Amino acid sequence: MNFDKLFQSQLDQLKQEGNYRVFAELQRQCGNFPRVKNHSHGQEEVTVWCSNDYLGMGNNPKVMQAMIDTVQECGTGAGGTRNISGNAWHHKQLEAELADLHQKESALLFTSGYVSNWAALSTLGARLPNAVIVSDELNHASMIEGIRHARCQKAIWKHNNPEDLDRKLAALPANATKIVAFESVYSMDGDIAPIKEIVEVAEKHNAMTYIDEVHAVGMYGPRGGGVAEREGLMDRITLIEGTLGKAYGVVGGYITGSNALVDFIRSFASGFIFTTALPPAVAAAATASIRHLKDSSYEREMQQRQVARLRARLDAEGIPHERNPSHIIPVMVKDPVKCKMLSDILMDQFGIYVQPINYPTVPKGTERLRFTPGPLHTDEDIEYLVLALKTLWKQCAIAHAVA
Amino acid sequence: MNFDKLFQSQLDQLKQEGNYRVFAELQRQCGNFPRVKNHSHGQEEVTVWCSNDYLGMGNNPKVMQAMIDTVQECGTGAGGTRNISGNAWHHKQLEAELADLHQKESALLFTSGYVSNWAALSTLGARLPNAVIVSDELNHASMIEGIRHARCQKAIWKHNNPEDLDRKLAALPANATKIVAFESVYSMDGDIAPIKEIVEVAEKHNAMTYIDEVHAVGMYGPRGGGVAEREGLMDRITLIEGTLGKAYGVVGGYITGSNALVDFIRSFASGFIFTTALPPAVAAAATASIRHLKDSSYEREMQQRQVARLRARLDAEGIPHERNPSHIIPVMVKDPVKCKMLSDILMDQFGIYVQPINYPTVPKGTERLRFTPGPLHTDEDIEYLVLALKTLWKQCAIAHAVA
Repeated sequence: MNFDKLFQSQLDQLKQEGNYRVFAELQRQCGNFPRVKNHSHGQEEVTVWCSNDYLGMGNNPKVMQAMIDTVQECGTGAGGTRNISGNAWHHKQLEAELADLHQKESALLFTSGYVSNWAALSTLGARLPNAVIVSDELNHASMIEGIRHARCQKAIWKHNNPEDLDRKLAALPANATKIVAFESVYSMDGDIAPIKEIVEVAEKHNAMTYIDEVHAVGMYGPRGGGVAEREGLMDRITLIEGTLGKAYGVVGGYITGSNALVDFIRSFASGFIFTTALPPAVAAAATASIRHLKDSSYEREMQQRQVARLRARLDAEGIPHERNPSHIIPVMVKDPVKCKMLSDILMDQFGIYVQPINYPTVPKGTERLRFTPGPLHTDEDIEYLVLALKTLWKQCAIAHAVA
Repeated sequence: MNFDKLFQSQLDQLKQEGNYRVFAELQRQCGNFPRVKNHSHGQEEVTVWCSNDYLGMGNNPKVMQAMIDTVQECGTGAGGTRNISGNAWHHKQLEAELADLHQKESALLFTSGYVSNWAALSTLGARLPNAVIVSDELNHASMIEGIRHARCQKAIWKHNNPEDLDRKLAALPANATKIVAFESVYSMDGDIAPIKEIVEVAEKHNAMTYIDEVHAVGMYGPRGGGVAEREGLMDRITLIEGTLGKAYGVVGGYITGSNALVDFIRSFASGFIFTTALPPAVAAAATASIRHLKDSSYEREMQQRQVARLRARLDAEGIPHERNPSHIIPVMVKDPVKCKMLSDILMDQFGIYVQPINYPTVPKGTERLRFTPGPLHTDEDIEYLVLALKTLWKQCAIAHAVA
């Protein structure tokens, strides 16, 4: 059988739809971020406008030094699963730091945020008696796959809608173990969940709460504990999940909660048990990053300043963008081919890198450019970006008028 | 509702069975491996006998330097998914190295070996028309979860039994897309699959072959390409999966295959698409490690020497161990409580660290100590280990006689 033909036919369809992905090939250079060397089409050096290293912590000297020191001290890898020789002192230090960050009894480290969601939700759903996972309709792929993998009952509630959540919870049988799963900051629209209302509805129905704060930790709250910290709600949430790969600038994911909850996931989650632990050097770098952002608000404030500034400049120039209370600025294009074209022109002609966001990351018809200004973007970077977008928008208008 | 009570009751059951896991807390010290600082019970410095850093490459100066240099050059994290700003030049270099290692057109990097199995098998099973995954009964948890997640038809064949595979394939409908999934080295028993026979049966039935070589890459074959390389079979296998977290001493997983196959997984696998890329420094370290083991056979030869030596010494002292043709030496205990007890005594009284292997890593009743001698274990280390085991076995015999 010619298997390649099977693969190719599905790839061809993707290409026809305009959803085939081409990765930009970049090389970060320390001290120069958000400017990076570009090995793909376009200019040799480009400015990144779509990184999830939201605060530039991947280039923070303390974080880098912690990683280097730990490589020198311990080597490059953990050498095993957490259970079989891979459990380093550095993992325990990091978990203590994370528990403290969210003011929980315990924390558990995973190889990625994706795996932490998938493993935790699938374990809760599969092992708790009569479990029902009640999930916001726009939850991330990793949560959806975790819920699917649990094979328990599920209910989907309307996005960020506590009234609908209330109805969905009220409809469940009395003996159900209810798990309300949602995110704080939704990464593609940048909207923020009404956490207090959701928690109150969940409490009314004796439901557990599971919040994904991956696009919030490091950036919100006085110590970077996320939106739930900012709103004083961490102690009312059963499980807080987060990542070390975005604002903290490293890689990895985690959950925090009570000792019993964390020990339960640690003891039963296949995706935690049967995988090599993260390198001790990665854990040490993440610990340094969390500690820094617990003390320093400078990065958060600078990010908020540059986000506000870009929004104001887009408004002033009449470039439409979605309103939201977060650090994410989506500019809607609503067509996969045009979205990719705009992104290519920005890369080739302006040295601006913003990846087109197409299906399956967002629903078809909602394709967009997604800008994430950070503390390392200068005011001049913002002016230059706005100038580029203005030029492109003018050309589009002309194209529309001529067509 | 008191959720902690729900969690605790399942944990209590685990403890009653003797299957509750306590992680040893270790701190590797460069240049000193397999000796590590011990932060848990037992002696302050212990010798690790159960690491999957099989060749000690996690302490190889070239590998460490590649990681350090890349942190200094690029920082600590990738800053995004491969598609959205996280695709570094270093990832592409590593994938080229992996494709070359297995003599395939393409390779694709994942955050772990677990994720590479789970994502690749679930995508193949879910998206290929009339897919049936035909799986060896002892395949790893990551493969089982991937097959489960695919929700396609599946068939289980008897462990390492090509005749049974032949029967299972013959029973499938003619229009099925058949995927034969197996491992080369099975990590807990150390037995090796009859790859040639399996490939021949698969070819006869027009089935795709999927081999997991995570416990073989780096260690078998003239360039470390695994058992399939050693046996000249790589070109007859559709997909070769491997890890960077064991013999290569870093972290991460990968698949290799035709351009179309790899592009298919790259384009459709949720576990690849929606996750932050590995740090460029991790990719660079892995590349250095693979390159080193392509050229150098010293580590492989020393490992084989020490494995043979430990086996001979165990035989000489009458300590029973399972025969197999790999680098893994299982000493069966067949009881979870005794297994843990032996492990504790070795740690406390002898400074020897070998984790008890209990359920769910192995079936209940097959609990064992699993030794993995490497090139950094000296002959004296082996003598000391054998002496310790001899002492314990003698005490057991006395205990048996008295009881």
